Order: sequence, then structure tokens, then C-alpha cells
Amino acid sequence: MVQLGLVGLGRMGFNMRERLRAAGHEVVGYDQNPEVSDVGSVRELVSALAAPRMIWVMVPAGEPTRQTIAELADLLTDGDLVIDGGNSKFTDDKRHAELLAAKGIGFLDAGVSGGVWGKENGYGLMVGGAQTDVERAMPIFDALRPEGPRAEGFAHAGSVGAGHYAKMVHNGIEYGLMQAYAEGFELLEAAKVVEDVPAVIKAWQRGTVVRSWLLELLVRALDEDPELDDLEGYVEDSGEGRWTLEEAINNAVPAPVISAALFARFASRQQDSAAMRAVAALRNQFGGHAVKKVAE
Amino acid sequence: MVQLGLVGLGRMGFNMRERLRAAGHEVVGYDQNPEVSDVGSVRELVSALAAPRMIWVMVPAGEPTRQTIAELADLLTDGDLVIDGGNSKFTDDKRHAELLAAKGIGFLDAGVSGGVWGKENGYGLMVGGAQTDVERAMPIFDALRPEGPRAEGFAHAGSVGAGHYAKMVHNGIEYGLMQAYAEGFELLEAAKVVEDVPAVIKAWQRGTVVRSWLLELLVRALDEDPELDDLEGYVEDSGEGRWTLEEAINNAVPAPVISAALFARFASRQQDSAAMRAVAALRNQFGGHAVKKVAE
Amino acid sequence: MVQLGLVGLGRMGFNMRERLRAAGHEVVGYDQNPEVSDVGSVRELVSALAAPRMIWVMVPAGEPTRQTIAELADLLTDGDLVIDGGNSKFTDDKRHAELLAAKGIGFLDAGVSGGVWGKENGYGLMVGGAQTDVERAMPIFDALRPEGPRAEGFAHAGSVGAGHYAKMVHNGIEYGLMQAYAEGFELLEAAKVVEDVPAVIKAWQRGTVVRSWLLELLVRALDEDPELDDLEGYVEDSGEGRWTLEEAINNAVPAPVISAALFARFASRQQDSAAMRAVAALRNQFGGHAVKKVAE
Amino acid sequence: MVQLGLVGLGRMGFNMRERLRAAGHEVVGYDQNPEVSDVGSVRELVSALAAPRMIWVMVPAGEPTRQTIAELADLLTDGDLVIDGGNSKFTDDKRHAELLAAKGIGFLDAGVSGGVWGKENGYGLMVGGAQTDVERAMPIFDALRPEGPRAEGFAHAGSVGAGHYAKMVHNGIEYGLMQAYAEGFELLEAAKVVEDVPAVIKAWQRGTVVRSWLLELLVRALDEDPELDDLEGYVEDSGEGRWTLEEAINNAVPAPVISAALFARFASRQQDSAAMRAVAALRNQFGGHAVKKVAE
Repeated sequence: MVQLGLVGLGRMGFNMRERLRAAGHEVVGYDQNPEVSDVGSVRELVSALAAPRMIWVMVPAGEPTRQTIAELADLLTDGDLVIDGGNSKFTDDKRHAELLAAKGIGFLDAGVSGGVWGKENGYGLMVGGAQTDVERAMPIFDALRPEGPRAEGFAHAGSVGAGHYAKMVHNGIEYGLMQAYAEGFELLEAAKVVEDVPAVIKAWQRGTVVRSWLLELLVRALDEDPELDDLEGYVEDSGEGRWTLEEAINNAVPAPVISAALFARFASRQQDSAAMRAVAALRNQFGGHAVKKVAE
Repeated sequence: MVQLGLVGLGRMGFNMRERLRAAGHEVVGYDQNPEVSDVGSVRELVSALAAPRMIWVMVPAGEPTRQTIAELADLLTDGDLVIDGGNSKFTDDKRHAELLAAKGIGFLDAGVSGGVWGKENGYGLMVGGAQTDVERAMPIFDALRPEGPRAEGFAHAGSVGAGHYAKMVHNGIEYGLMQAYAEGFELLEAAKVVEDVPAVIKAWQRGTVVRSWLLELLVRALDEDPELDDLEGYVEDSGEGRWTLEEAINNAVPAPVISAALFARFASRQQDSAAMRAVAALRNQFGGHAVKKVAE
Repeated sequence: MVQLGLVGLGRMGFNMRERLRAAGHEVVGYDQNPEVSDVGSVRELVSALAAPRMIWVMVPAGEPTRQTIAELADLLTDGDLVIDGGNSKFTDDKRHAELLAAKGIGFLDAGVSGGVWGKENGYGLMVGGAQTDVERAMPIFDALRPEGPRAEGFAHAGSVGAGHYAKMVHNGIEYGLMQAYAEGFELLEAAKVVEDVPAVIKAWQRGTVVRSWLLELLVRALDEDPELDDLEGYVEDSGEGRWTLEEAINNAVPAPVISAALFARFASRQQDSAAMRAVAALRNQFGGHAVKKVAE
Repeated sequence: MVQLGLVGLGRMGFNMRERLRAAGHEVVGYDQNPEVSDVGSVRELVSALAAPRMIWVMVPAGEPTRQTIAELADLLTDGDLVIDGGNSKFTDDKRHAELLAAKGIGFLDAGVSGGVWGKENGYGLMVGGAQTDVERAMPIFDALRPEGPRAEGFAHAGSVGAGHYAKMVHNGIEYGLMQAYAEGFELLEAAKVVEDVPAVIKAWQRGTVVRSWLLELLVRALDEDPELDDLEGYVEDSGEGRWTLEEAINNAVPAPVISAALFARFASRQQDSAAMRAVAALRNQFGGHAVKKVAE
């Protein structure tokens, strides 16, 4: 059993603390929200841990993670180890590793997949960093990952940054998978040839080529709301899809499906599209085609 | 100077009659609307023409054109010639040609481009059918097409169906061109780096690689409404784009740009997207991500 | 236990006979290949079955299926039942049902998913037709479908045609899913940030959002050939993807992911692209950009 | 008449010197290639100009432009003006402006379109920077731009960076336009319904909705090589298309057409596609579908 500091007890971090404790590890958690926090500050967290310390950072990517790691770089000492389990962009990892290495502190980047189900099912883990650091943190990874062979839920993807890179691509794929199911669902709904659309989707769960965990979640959603009409077709994106597409561009890799999935999200958030106003205007100009005027 | 019967005096046919008369041809026009019609019926139109007759059909594609040609097949006689100048699907042309050929009546399919500007600028023409029929109708084609070399505004594209096929592909390309300008316009509007977007687009009219007639129309539209915000981003499609994509599928030709342009129009007409409701539902299921609920 | 005639003992039909017999049903199979066939002709097959007969057709979609069903319409009699389990286009089903109904023969269309794994895992089934016919064939469906709750591997999708429609959309989704994984794989390969790409993909099998049966198959393929470089990137398509896209067009449903997946297959089969020759020619024309000339 | 220093006498710069001299301006040009250069070094160029100097930089974007501007920052003095007419990324402009401003040197970024035809037709110009600098350089802009109203070939797009931003979007649109024509060309070639494809495309030059300068260039290319089969379908990209797509991502603007055009170029350069190998492998895994093995 090992001791772990855990910064960030939101939806993901809170559940991870539960799962780690259930596995017998000692977890000291810190969060801005005192109701869930075990200590009053990051400084207290560091003090509560025996050196050499291991601290898992599970806060939002970008500025919050950068600030947390900067604070840890101040507080920790030679021989400690920081693991960034958030959705940081892989380009941040190298800077964090260098910042910490200057004080002799190790760094691992860990892509974590599984969402709210991870507490129960375990989390898929993709880790970047030095082999010795990976081995040191392995009891934690083993507790977090799903049961079954380690290689089916955990990968040491490469050196620093490789874990978040793998997670980024994982999420890019996820965008494409979700959009594929979504297009099929919309076509079934629109064509009205299939009379019981939720029953068909439910029946895809066993034996078919398209069976997957996402499909099971779609079945759950349809069980609750068979036409999904309690929802609006408004979808946020959280960075990884954009970064995947940027990386596809940087590497001259065609990514028509991932880009289409991302653009569908962008479009879902537009009340009105300047592009389509331009097309409407052009059709009106050359063909005298009717346009919809904004109501006065 | 030749004599022509013209069935259909809508936006296109009315202007074509004007242009043909201005060129010195004799045109007898029929339309359901008595205010613009020269005669009271298709039968009267046929009676008013000297055999061998030449009749141009300029009515909406699909059922209206099929009915008009069936009626003409009844009324016309051996040696007459029918020209379908509407946006018929090329697969209709062969049936029409056979129907008419059974009575010794010739048939040409003519794709006509140019919209409301054709009266003044002339119409781009793509014609399918027999060489002798094309030669017979050439005085009409020469009057309708723009000034300049015949080969720059008129093509005998091939046998029956080839004219409408060429027009179909022309319109598919047109969808792609419009969407390309539209995406650029939206990006310029969204990024707010360029301060005077209409001025930049106006400046693309001379010297640049993107100069085109569509660009000139976009400049006109922006002159009238600099942010195009009197319009809604709602765009119809009229068949040729769909048929182009079907033909791309039939011929295993990748058509990512033309399909993207068509799908953007479909999406522009959706109040809400079932597909994006499905994506929202999935994100909520696995990640507990917030969704927008339909207001009660 | 029921008796079933089975026409077509190829990759799918052969395995289905095995699975049905293992479940205790009596199957009389016919195939053009005498090495696998139980009888010498369809006529003999029909004679070998006790009325009222039930015959499953499992031959290639299109002409072979149409011919088989026409032959069965001749040979069968009032009260018999034909099930088309192939990948027929849903528009064929209504014609087949009418042809058979004229002689009092019932018809079901059954979309069958699962590929070569179905023998062991069971087949996902989507069925269209009358409720009484579905109930009559249920022992067969129950033997073919995977173990577990019936509703997770079988759906009565609606009236005639609905089964193949559901299967068509299933396959359209499948195209999108495969392309999403494929784009992610190519990006990981190209970027070389992740050092052990197969290890990362293997680790996605448990706990992650992208886990699926297709992912497991990708892991199998990478186990055999870690860079997949024994293969050429040449991919056929077999109809359902095209039909899904046609139906999306017919129903004005945006399908950017499914179309992108289909077009990627088209492009994979081109030695050279006329479209890209046109783009190269244009760049050369306006910018003097170098082009690759075909070697003399 | 004004005096201008011009650094870079490649395909673009050389022609621009010609056009400027034909308009009566005094141009001192420098290029690494002594055969076209008027002076032996940038230092000599600066010495040859009377203060306050105006220097146009027309060298490849990226490192060459950055080095040239750094060198000019050393050599020039308060009151001079540098214009970057290359295809620099707009994000470079601000840094260049600041570097030069520290010494009192002005800066304009000028997007220049028109390719090898600009010498004769004039260049479309999109300029970013201060109004006073724009006015000072206007005689140069007026000589470079096409004849006709200034606003149809020149725009002051905004502050520093806006010129290159406008040019970037211009090029993104250009990618989409070219791909739209290219897809139409390929479909016409593949379908073989239209018998004389070059004749049809030639006929689109007058009167049609798709008429444009790019279309005229396609006609020129087809005049030289009617099936474009002297070329390979291999297309480079030069940055602006990628940046446009990055900016679309940054601004959450759907850009399906521009991205499809960029990805088609990426794919055109691949001998074999890792993504399509993955799809082939998956089809083989689940369906036993034949794959093409790499020849031994």
C-alpha cells in the first residue's frame, strides 16, 4: 500500500480517491471546496505526506493545472513525483517536466479515460515519462485501472507527453465514434422506416459489428428518453478534439471524420450561421431565390 | 430568324422570351398565368406554330416537365423538336426522348445557367442530343448564349442526357464554390482580425486568384447589407446537388467538398439536430457533462 | 426444434448452418458448391422440407438474391415462409414480399451482423415483416442471436424492409466507426510521439470511452502485424455505405462522417486522382508551382 | 514617382520589379542570385536608398522573412518603412512590427495575390498597418494593383496582421474553390455521360454561375492536356490552408469544405495510407474480407 497526495476532488478526482482507498491506499486529498477536502491547502497536503512524496494532480487543464504544478514545484523537494492526470495538452507536459526536474522532482503525464463510470469499472490509463517513475507509481495505476490484464487498461506510451498525446488521440477518435452513431440515429429517426428505433439500437448490443461501450450508453440514454427530446442538440467541446485536428494538420494526416465530428459540434452551438447567410445571399443574388428575412 | 414555342414563362422563361425577341426571333409563349401568356393553352401554342415546330420547355423539373412533355408528345407531329431547358434529372431525358421519338419528334436536353442575369448577360448552355437537332436549334442557342466565342458559352455535351448531366455537375460545383466563400466570410467575421470585412471581399474582385462572378455577387450582397444580418442562414437545395452526390456515389468518385456543401444546407434548415442530441446525451452519460434541457 | 431450408452456404450461411444445428434444429442446406450442399438443387431443397416450409436465403445481395427468391416463388406454396438474411437493399424487400404474397407465401427481411465471429458469438439480428411471421421464425432467430436477453441481440424493426433498413444504417455507422479508429491510428503512427502505438491501442480495451468490439479486432490485427504493413491501404465497399448515404440525401440528414468514411474508401482504390490532377494543374497555371509529370 | 527597395526577386518579386518600373517607379532590387540582383547585399541596398526609405520584403515566409526583417531592423533608421509582401503567418506580423517600431521603423503586412499573372494583370492587395504608413506606400500599391477602381483590387484590411490574415483566408477559400472544380471534373471524367468534358468546361466561361478566373485557368490547362494525364495527382500545400483551418478551430467556425480540400491534398501525397490499412485490417478481421497483401 502506498501513500498519495491528490489535488483536485471534482467529478473525476473525488471518484478516484474512493477507488484508491477501496484498494487500500492512503490518499490525502485537497480541493478548493472544503466539504470534500482532507486538508486546508496544497501546502498542508505536502506537509501531510512522507517524503519521497507522490502527488496526483487532477484539476482542469490549462491555467489551473499550470498553477498547481508551479505551486508544487515550490513546495516539493528532490525525489518527489508529480503525476498530471488531467486533460493537459501534451505540449504543456515538457515544460512541467523541466520545471520540476530543475528541483529533482519527477513527472509523469497520465491520460485517464472512463468518466463517471471509472470509480466502478476502473479507468483506462495512458502514461508518459521515465520507466523508473512509472514503476514507482504502478501500485496507484494498478488500483485505478480496470480489472483484467494490465496491458488491456494501462500503457506506458512513451516519454513525457506521450500519455496525454495518446489520450488526445483517444478523444479525437471518441468524437468520430459518437458522431457516427449520432448520424445513424438521426437517419433512423428521420426516415421512419424502422418503427421502433430504440429497440433496434438496443438490439445492436450483442453480436453486431457496432457494439461498444458508447452504444451501451446510447441505449441507456434512449431508455430514459426514447427520442432524446428532453435535450437540446447543443454540444460543447473541451479541447482534445481541436488538438487532435491541429496535430493531424501538423502531421499532414487526413482526418475527415474527426474534423467533421468537431465541426458538427461547432455548428450545434450556432444560433445562426454567417456562412449560411452568405450562401442564402448568393442564391438570392443570382437566382432570385427566396430568402428568409429576419423578422422585424 | 426562327420561330419558337416556349412553355413556361416564370423567372427564367419570361426573361428568355425577352432575350430571344430582342435578337429578332419570333416567340410564342405559354404560361398558366394568363397575364404573361401569349396563348390560352399548350394546344393553342402548337396550333400557332408552323410545322416543323420547335418548342422549348422551361417549367419546373420533375412532374411539371414530365406532364408538359407528355402533352407535347400528344400534340406534336413527325419532324417537330422539343427542347427541355429546365433542371430535369438526366435520367428523365432518355425517357422523354423515347416517348417523343416514337412519334418522330426530336428531343434535346439543355442545361441553362445564369439565373436572373441571363437576360442581360446571356445564358451558359450545355446541350445533349443529336447533332442535326442541335444544328437546327442553333439560332436559338446563339441568341440565348452570351456574346463572345460560341465555345465559351455553349457546348454540345453529348447524346441525350449529357446536357442536363453537365448542368447537374455545374450546380454541384456551384454548391462547393459558394460554401468555400461562405466559410471564409464566416471566419473573417468571427475572428475580428480584419476590421472591414466587406472591403476585403470587395478588393478580391481584381487580380486575385479567387475572383469570380459569385464573388461579385457576394460584393453586391454586402453592399446592400454589410453583415448579411437581414437574412437567416437558411438555405434550400433544389435537386442538382443531391443528384451530383448520388452520381459521385454511383461512380465511386470522392466528393467531400460537394457533400459538405450539401450537408451544410441540410443542417441550416434544422431547428434542432437529432444527431447532436445523441452526442449530447452520450457526453452526459459517460462524463456527466452538462446538457441543455429543453425549456419546460 | 424446427426445420429450416437454407439457400447459400458461403462464409455466412455455412456458419449459420453449424450454429443452428448445434442448437438442435434440422437444417437442409443448398449451395452451388456441391462440396458443402446437402441437396442438388433448390427444387430438391423444397422437396426435402415438410410444409409449411421455412426457407432462409443467404446469397449475395442484388441479382443472386432476386433470382433465388423468384425461383422460390415458383416452387413454394401457400403458407410457406421466406427469410432474406442477405444484405439486400431495403427497396428490394417490398417487391419480394409482394411477389411471394401473391402465392400466399410469407416474407421476412433479416439484417444479420457479426461476420465470421457469428458462429461462436451469435449474430445480431434486425427483422422486418409481419408479427405472426416473426413469431413463427423466432426459434431460428433465438438460435442465431447471441446469448443474453433477446432484446440485446434481436429486434423486430418494423414492417417489410425495416430489417434491412436497420442493417443498412448499422453498416453506415460501422463505416464511420472504422474510419475514426483508422484516423487515430494513422495520426499516432505519423506523429511518433507515442513510442509503442499497438500497446496504447491494446490498453484502450478496458475502462476507456472508445472500447468496442471493433477496437478488439484492431488489437488482434496489430498483434499479428504491428504496423499493418503487410497490407495495402485498399478498401472495398459493399453497398450498404452507399445506400446509407443515399438515404441521408433523400431524408435531408447531414451525414458528414459516414460520407467521409465512404469517400476515404473510394480514394483508397484510386491509383491516381483526376481531381487532384486538376488541382495540380490549377496551381501550376496560376502560380507556376511545380507539378509531378508522369514519368515518360 | 517613388523609390523602393525590394528584397527577394524570385518568381513574384522579379515580376513586381518589372511592373513597378513600368509604372515609372525607381526600384533597387536585391536577391541572393547575383544574376537578377541590382546590388550585392541588403546593406548595399539600404545604402542605395534615400532616407526615409521604403523596403518591400518578398522572400519565402517563415525563417527567410524573419531573418530579412531582423537584418533590416539593424540597418534601417527612424522614419523608414518595411512592407512584408510574402505569405507570412499573421502571428509573425506583430513581432516584426514591434521589432521595427523599437527603432522608429514602420511596418505594413501586405497579402499579395495573383501569381505569375500579376505582372500583366496586377496583384490583388490586402494590407495591414497604420493609416499613415498605408498612405505613404500608396503609390507602390497603386502601381502593383490591377487597373480599375482601387477598392476592387486593394484593401486596407486593418491594423498590423490584418493583411496577411485576409490573404490567409483568401487562400483557404482558394483551396475550396479548386477542390470543387476538381471534384466536378473527376465526376465528369468518370461517368462518361458527357462525351467532350473539356468542351463543357470551356463553355462554362461565359454566362454560367461557376465562371471565374480559376475556371479560365482550368480551360487553359485542358487546352494543353485534355485529360490532364501528363500530370500526377500530387498536390503540395504551402501553409495558408493549414493556418486557415487552425484559425477556424480557434474561432469555433465550421470549415468542412476548406478542411476537405486540405485533406485531399494530404491524401494525394500518400503512397499508402495507414488509416486505410487499418480499415482493411478490420474488415478482414470481422468479415474475412479479402485484403491486398503487399507484394513480396
